[in-house]
Amino acid sequence: MPKGFNFTVEATDGRARAGTFTTPHGDIQTPVFAPVGTQGTVKGLTPQQLADLQTQLLLANTYHLYLRPGDRIIADLGGLHEFMSWDGPILTDSGGFQVFSLGEINQITEDGVQFQSHLDGSYHILTPEKSIEIQENLGADIIMCFDECPDPYDRKYNLDALERTHQWAVRCQKAHNSNHQALFGIVQGGIFPDLRIKSAQYISELDFPGNAIGGLSVGEKKTEMLEILDIVPEHLPKDKPRYLMGVGTPYDIVQSVARGIDIFDCVNPTRLARHKTAITRYGRINISNQIYSTDDRPLVEDCTCYACQHFSRAYLRHLVKSNELLAPVLLSIHNIHTMLELTSNIRARILKGEFQAFLSDYLSIYEANGDQQ
Amino acid sequence: MPKGFNFTVEATDGRARAGTFTTPHGDIQTPVFAPVGTQGTVKGLTPQQLADLQTQLLLANTYHLYLRPGDRIIADLGGLHEFMSWDGPILTDSGGFQVFSLGEINQITEDGVQFQSHLDGSYHILTPEKSIEIQENLGADIIMCFDECPDPYDRKYNLDALERTHQWAVRCQKAHNSNHQALFGIVQGGIFPDLRIKSAQYISELDFPGNAIGGLSVGEKKTEMLEILDIVPEHLPKDKPRYLMGVGTPYDIVQSVARGIDIFDCVNPTRLARHKTAITRYGRINISNQIYSTDDRPLVEDCTCYACQHFSRAYLRHLVKSNELLAPVLLSIHNIHTMLELTSNIRARILKGEFQAFLSDYLSIYEANGDQQ
Repeated sequence: MPKGFNFTVEATDGRARAGTFTTPHGDIQTPVFAPVGTQGTVKGLTPQQLADLQTQLLLANTYHLYLRPGDRIIADLGGLHEFMSWDGPILTDSGGFQVFSLGEINQITEDGVQFQSHLDGSYHILTPEKSIEIQENLGADIIMCFDECPDPYDRKYNLDALERTHQWAVRCQKAHNSNHQALFGIVQGGIFPDLRIKSAQYISELDFPGNAIGGLSVGEKKTEMLEILDIVPEHLPKDKPRYLMGVGTPYDIVQSVARGIDIFDCVNPTRLARHKTAITRYGRINISNQIYSTDDRPLVEDCTCYACQHFSRAYLRHLVKSNELLAPVLLSIHNIHTMLELTSNIRARILKGEFQAFLSDYLSIYEANGDQQ
Repeated sequence: MPKGFNFTVEATDGRARAGTFTTPHGDIQTPVFAPVGTQGTVKGLTPQQLADLQTQLLLANTYHLYLRPGDRIIADLGGLHEFMSWDGPILTDSGGFQVFSLGEINQITEDGVQFQSHLDGSYHILTPEKSIEIQENLGADIIMCFDECPDPYDRKYNLDALERTHQWAVRCQKAHNSNHQALFGIVQGGIFPDLRIKSAQYISELDFPGNAIGGLSVGEKKTEMLEILDIVPEHLPKDKPRYLMGVGTPYDIVQSVARGIDIFDCVNPTRLARHKTAITRYGRINISNQIYSTDDRPLVEDCTCYACQHFSRAYLRHLVKSNELLAPVLLSIHNIHTMLELTSNIRARILKGEFQAFLSDYLSIYEANGDQQ
């Protein structure tokens, strides 16, 4: 572990783990869910509101911040923590996923990826070395190896891409100079168990301070994702945190913790909020529905979040119908609270040795509702 | 004064007054600036953030809330305070101004105004009695007489409209039944001193618990507005609060307090925030300007607001350029803080007998900057 970092597993329950990941900006109690602040802001929320929600870890996107305002500007302004006024732990991705999903790819070579900005069409090249340089300029606590995230079903493409991702991991490790950032490796391999095992073994041997699983929740079936999650964590070091990138829903998180995952991030809570949708433990509510127009109950009866403690469904529906800015703000507060409360609750159950009971209760209620969101 | 209301002038300095207006939802220290929550929400801000800003009074718009979600729904949900989760004093306007500025007017008669909704084209009739009924359903602490706001330069129209406004004031007073709301009268009369004096005398004689000046800052010249403000307050009762509707800028407020006004409201702080603009004591800043891209200073160096205490101009510019929701939120926090600090500062100076010195300092700095915004 780099200086200032430490990971301790405090309890296990089946394959589920409760741990503490120490970073230079504070401890993270795992399992943990990280809200996403793509452009250096969790859409609509102040850092004060995020702290009030007991947010432990934020994710920001290297691709977006590199293109605008630029990682050098952020470095000159004191780094990302200072820039966005967030004193807690931050994780940046490598930019790889966004280059492949948002940018217009011109060329992928062994060296890296040439792409056009989705903002202005300008040309850029992202290589493992460049990704690390950008992430060092941003200064997040946890940074990620530059990887390729191919179509999960295309075996031939996955074979080639996996080779590149592994070589790039080695190059990222060599390029990484800062001693206050933990560089995580990333396992790829699509829906193919043999490729996933090969990748997990390769990445594990590089002895990163943490390991991530990428390329899931990108279009494959839920059963296929769970099948991969049944295999991969077992091939990753037990004494390092395991991060499942871009996942997910309450259901995904419960199922993934059961398979040994410690860290999650997902845009869902804020994206759904902008689409008028509240996350509850067992399904979603579209608050624009007419049936809520005179409903004086909170979104979720026993929820302790600021939105549920102060506002009725009728008020939230009114905000949504009036296109008011406060609608996504309050729904984001509720949705993030729901995710953080879920992981905090899971952690408490693991520490008490009650996770297996929690899991079977959860799944039975969830499946009874017929909603796996 | 109705039960639960009281107004005391604690100090005067020239024509400027510092007072306390007691309402059933708390005391208002005057001069006071009320942020506007048109649809039952100050755009983008939670009631917690408004309380942190030491907001004393909020304005909400009868026209908007009548059309959506409907005043009966709000009444059934416990009234506007409960609906928007704001425990402090609220003022609602009569709907008159919006009917004339937003609705499509079909007919103005002595009885009232027939108009079409700006939302769906549906037909509605607003009369003095209907306006009071809606405002009683909403349940604000301060409610307003239904009035007509004509072109300030059209003398003939103003003569007719003033007659209606005065008759409507009498009808509003008769229709007003609730004993926990203070109904304010409104003085009209365009830019014509004789009409304004006539109106102030007529409205004063009706002995409302407070009096407002409407129909200013609606397109007339600044000097014309100040000329009217030199005359009207002197013809209104000294022992009742005086409210200048829809005004204004820092300059307008300083000048109006100097002429005996106690209460202000304006959409400027939040509207300018949505247009990337920060209010400062002596002018405006458009934060999208390229010159701020690497500027590590806060919006205003000595400002104590949350935005200035935590974020650089460079970060705010980044938010604005990225169309992030947090941009109008932070700029609204700064802008509202600026207005509330200004009125609080003015009040402190009046209490110390230093307002005349403050006024001449303010005007000399303001005029040196050549910016009367």
